[in-house]
Amino acid sequence: MLLSSIDTVVMIGSGNVATHFSKAIINAGIKIIQIYSKHPESARQLSTETGAEFVSSAQELSAHASLYILAVNDNAIEKVASEIKTEKKLVVHTSGSVPADVLKIASPHYGVIYPLQTFSMNSAILWKEIPMFIEASSPELEKLLIHFALLFSEKVYPLASEKRKYLHLAAVFANNFVNYLYAVSYHIVSKQQLPFDYVKPLIIETAKRVTENYPTDLQTGPAKRADIKIIIEHMDMLAQNK
Amino acid sequence: MLLSSIDTVVMIGSGNVATHFSKAIINAGIKIIQIYSKHPESARQLSTETGAEFVSSAQELSAHASLYILAVNDNAIEKVASEIKTEKKLVVHTSGSVPADVLKIASPHYGVIYPLQTFSMNSAILWKEIPMFIEASSPELEKLLIHFALLFSEKVYPLASEKRKYLHLAAVFANNFVNYLYAVSYHIVSKQQLPFDYVKPLIIETAKRVTENYPTDLQTGPAKRADIKIIIEHMDMLAQNK
Repeated sequence: MLLSSIDTVVMIGSGNVATHFSKAIINAGIKIIQIYSKHPESARQLSTETGAEFVSSAQELSAHASLYILAVNDNAIEKVASEIKTEKKLVVHTSGSVPADVLKIASPHYGVIYPLQTFSMNSAILWKEIPMFIEASSPELEKLLIHFALLFSEKVYPLASEKRKYLHLAAVFANNFVNYLYAVSYHIVSKQQLPFDYVKPLIIETAKRVTENYPTDLQTGPAKRADIKIIIEHMDMLAQNK
Repeated sequence: MLLSSIDTVVMIGSGNVATHFSKAIINAGIKIIQIYSKHPESARQLSTETGAEFVSSAQELSAHASLYILAVNDNAIEKVASEIKTEKKLVVHTSGSVPADVLKIASPHYGVIYPLQTFSMNSAILWKEIPMFIEASSPELEKLLIHFALLFSEKVYPLASEKRKYLHLAAVFANNFVNYLYAVSYHIVSKQQLPFDYVKPLIIETAKRVTENYPTDLQTGPAKRADIKIIIEHMDMLAQNK
């Protein structure tokens, strides 16, 4: 019943993940036939770049793609899934935290392709190093999705929703919260008319080092050595440096 | 009155900074005549590696080095400075947060060489890319210390204590706190029997990206988009994943 390979895609969404993933799909020689999005500006841009038709309502969705990829905000996945009636087609989302089975409403053949990376509009993505995590409604589909993901990445792993959501949580700490600390660091030096360039080698080294050591073994700083005097001074400085 | 160049050093301390800095000094062709430390084990090791004599009391300190470097814990600097009576010699510390003038007690010729990097025992340091910040009790000495620091790094900048302490504070966020978040991330995946390797490409990309963009422009995640539902779920997961 299932396809033996994926050769046409409908991309649902036109944000960062949808855009980067669409470009990678095109580069892999697979046709995107439609971009379905509620955001005409970014969707038209993506439509131009991929040669895919832009549609803004579920009624216009083609019934003839082999894979429908929902790369939309986590809390929109279920709603969008309910709109699309693909029946016998394959439907996947790209979210770390949303269970695969919310897609049941769209199709009995559903799954997840979760690329664990941060995507922002204006930066090139080295897909082959991005870990991609696959889940599917059947072993047959899992195999098909793994095969598809291997077109982009050398690091493709099956992973159930229950585990994937923890991976996503770990990513929130490693990316979202870390980036917030970078922003605080940037703010501190900027307020002092010092260039953030001074801090960048430290940021790179801090990241690199954790790829070769346990983070706990690398911990240093006033908090680690319980240097209350400097911590209090730092809190005063933060209060004054707003 | 001041020396025209630095050719002999006494290193005070035998921790991470003292060890890495000592090796860089030796590699630059400058002699370390003594290592003074209260920690015989690491000091003997460093003494062996550098060919410097190990001394464990201030009374044994040579009076004949051109530069005395205090690479000790921030809250030990003042105490150690009071022990050493170098009089006409040059005394510097390597701390980001301690003012230069706490060294007055040791010598009228004092300063700071602050290398802004994280040093842990078992990792190679690429000195030429480490920003080094110089402060000195006189313009003449500043020139001498800049000249000395340029032996190690291509990025040497004069910076007063008042500014340097903010740079150190920014480094606490960019390294200490970031590394702590890496540790949390590691803990989350480990508890789920998932390899931390899955998260490493994200960590590297997150750091790289901030060297080319403003951190605030890169911010993503549930908190950024005020996705309360997933944030609450994450808090529950953290509570259960201890």
